[in-house]
Amino acid sequence: MQASITLQALIEEKIQAVRFPANPANLYDPLNYFMTLGGKRTRPLLTLLGCDLFGKPGESAVNAAIAVELFHNFTLIHDDIMDEAPLRRGMSTVHTKWNENIAILSGDVLFVKAFEFLSNNDVRFLPQLIAVFTRTAAEVCEGQQMDMDFESRQDVTIEEYIEMIRLKTSVLLGAALEMGAIIGEASEEDKRLLYEFGMNVGIAFQLKDDILDLYADPEKFGKQVGGDILSNKKTFLLLTAEQNANSTQRSELKKIMDEFAGEKKIEAARNLFDELGIQELAMDRMKEYYAAAKTAMDKISVPESAKQELLGIADYLMNREV
Amino acid sequence: MQASITLQALIEEKIQAVRFPANPANLYDPLNYFMTLGGKRTRPLLTLLGCDLFGKPGESAVNAAIAVELFHNFTLIHDDIMDEAPLRRGMSTVHTKWNENIAILSGDVLFVKAFEFLSNNDVRFLPQLIAVFTRTAAEVCEGQQMDMDFESRQDVTIEEYIEMIRLKTSVLLGAALEMGAIIGEASEEDKRLLYEFGMNVGIAFQLKDDILDLYADPEKFGKQVGGDILSNKKTFLLLTAEQNANSTQRSELKKIMDEFAGEKKIEAARNLFDELGIQELAMDRMKEYYAAAKTAMDKISVPESAKQELLGIADYLMNREV
Repeated sequence: MQASITLQALIEEKIQAVRFPANPANLYDPLNYFMTLGGKRTRPLLTLLGCDLFGKPGESAVNAAIAVELFHNFTLIHDDIMDEAPLRRGMSTVHTKWNENIAILSGDVLFVKAFEFLSNNDVRFLPQLIAVFTRTAAEVCEGQQMDMDFESRQDVTIEEYIEMIRLKTSVLLGAALEMGAIIGEASEEDKRLLYEFGMNVGIAFQLKDDILDLYADPEKFGKQVGGDILSNKKTFLLLTAEQNANSTQRSELKKIMDEFAGEKKIEAARNLFDELGIQELAMDRMKEYYAAAKTAMDKISVPESAKQELLGIADYLMNREV
Repeated sequence: MQASITLQALIEEKIQAVRFPANPANLYDPLNYFMTLGGKRTRPLLTLLGCDLFGKPGESAVNAAIAVELFHNFTLIHDDIMDEAPLRRGMSTVHTKWNENIAILSGDVLFVKAFEFLSNNDVRFLPQLIAVFTRTAAEVCEGQQMDMDFESRQDVTIEEYIEMIRLKTSVLLGAALEMGAIIGEASEEDKRLLYEFGMNVGIAFQLKDDILDLYADPEKFGKQVGGDILSNKKTFLLLTAEQNANSTQRSELKKIMDEFAGEKKIEAARNLFDELGIQELAMDRMKEYYAAAKTAMDKISVPESAKQELLGIADYLMNREV
């Protein structure tokens, strides 16, 4: 993944070079803070590789890549308010370190900056770039709203859950790649296929997240294993367990989720999930999306050798242990 | 103002035709609700008239006009959260009728829609339109942050206050006009002058707001006269009074603001302001900005007859009693 490493360094350099004005300090200090918290920078890397795939230097897509990363960080700042999350990447969230109003407003202005970077592209790409960007931004908001709605709903189906993660997480991976492909001047069909690839990788990625949350190796995972169970989060695992349980198991599951706490709750849920083969079902579903992603990539009309970088990243995301 | 009336009807029609998806209902219902609360639609009207001024039909700028109005409403939804405002145009604010998280997120998606409308313009205007729009959007956020910062500051100067209202309110009036002028294919100089006109009208408009808040005819005003005094808001009036007061008057003012309440507080503040000639000072300052606006308009290279519509609106905004 030589190209990725070089491009990742480029992204980090460009992100660190993004300058916010000094004043008002309460508006811009939170952004300087938040943008240096790091993160994997997966999305902007996808944009550069999406361009590179079609034989144009990844660097050509750097402004679009920064736009994607700034947008992603804007959503994180606002999501953290809504989720009342105290920490992000092990550090205080903006609304905790400053306050909610500042987090709302500095998030807003980060979104403006994302759009500014997006517009800093060759005018012949602008209409398409903006169309993909705005469609995706609206979808990400829709996914976040569905996620919030699910908290108070008892009838969430697995298909609704998949649709929620598709909107909240996956479409942005697809769009990041598609924006690269636009600048790489790919054909309409290839752009569509690359978006398909990214979106399916995104869903598989999120399912992997759900699996890792309960089945990761605690030595490697870096955060508490079982967090989703403790917070009764309606993940693919829990929804599949609820759907596949017989009536005895369903009562048991309800009791575990409503009455148990701490390690005992995690342990009991994991035992019941094992009885139902939930981890395998989740892995199977993940592999389906991963396979769909690879099928889309197969059809893209560039040499197989050019695809290895993106396939490698997808493979890494599927097999990761953290 | 025949043209304005026709164009205003067009704007209202187009705004009512803006369709948000049905789902998620908690994301889009607030927008359907908020966009029908009305408002004067001054900003989009300015965009259409800014185009019309240069001899191109105002209708050509309708998508930019809608973008400006959606952006303005997005800022209102978020500002209402930050200001903990229960009412907007006499109706419940989004965060009151739904909740804060929904107000954050539906505001965000409204901002996305604003960009979408903006991008729906001839590609040759896009870079300029986006540059004006993003610069202005960032400035509006900066103005809002300054306004919030002022609440806890005791050393706000009059010049800082003017800068705050310039950013929070006036630049958007300037930008609304400039965006119309871009689509109207005005010269660089004329675009700059029209922006100057709008920005200065905007500052005068906000000073008029400050004056009306204390000196409006209660019969005509429609909301409580003296609201700014009751909430100790640092307006041009209060800051000028503080600056011009001698030490006795300054202690008196402090006592009124800190210890008095209700009608007695408003009455006492008004009496002290009268002693200091505050209303006249505010009117003088307002007229300065109004004069600067007219000077800018004078220099725009279109026939005087074409300017009457915009001058009429500015005149109306300055002389309004509500």
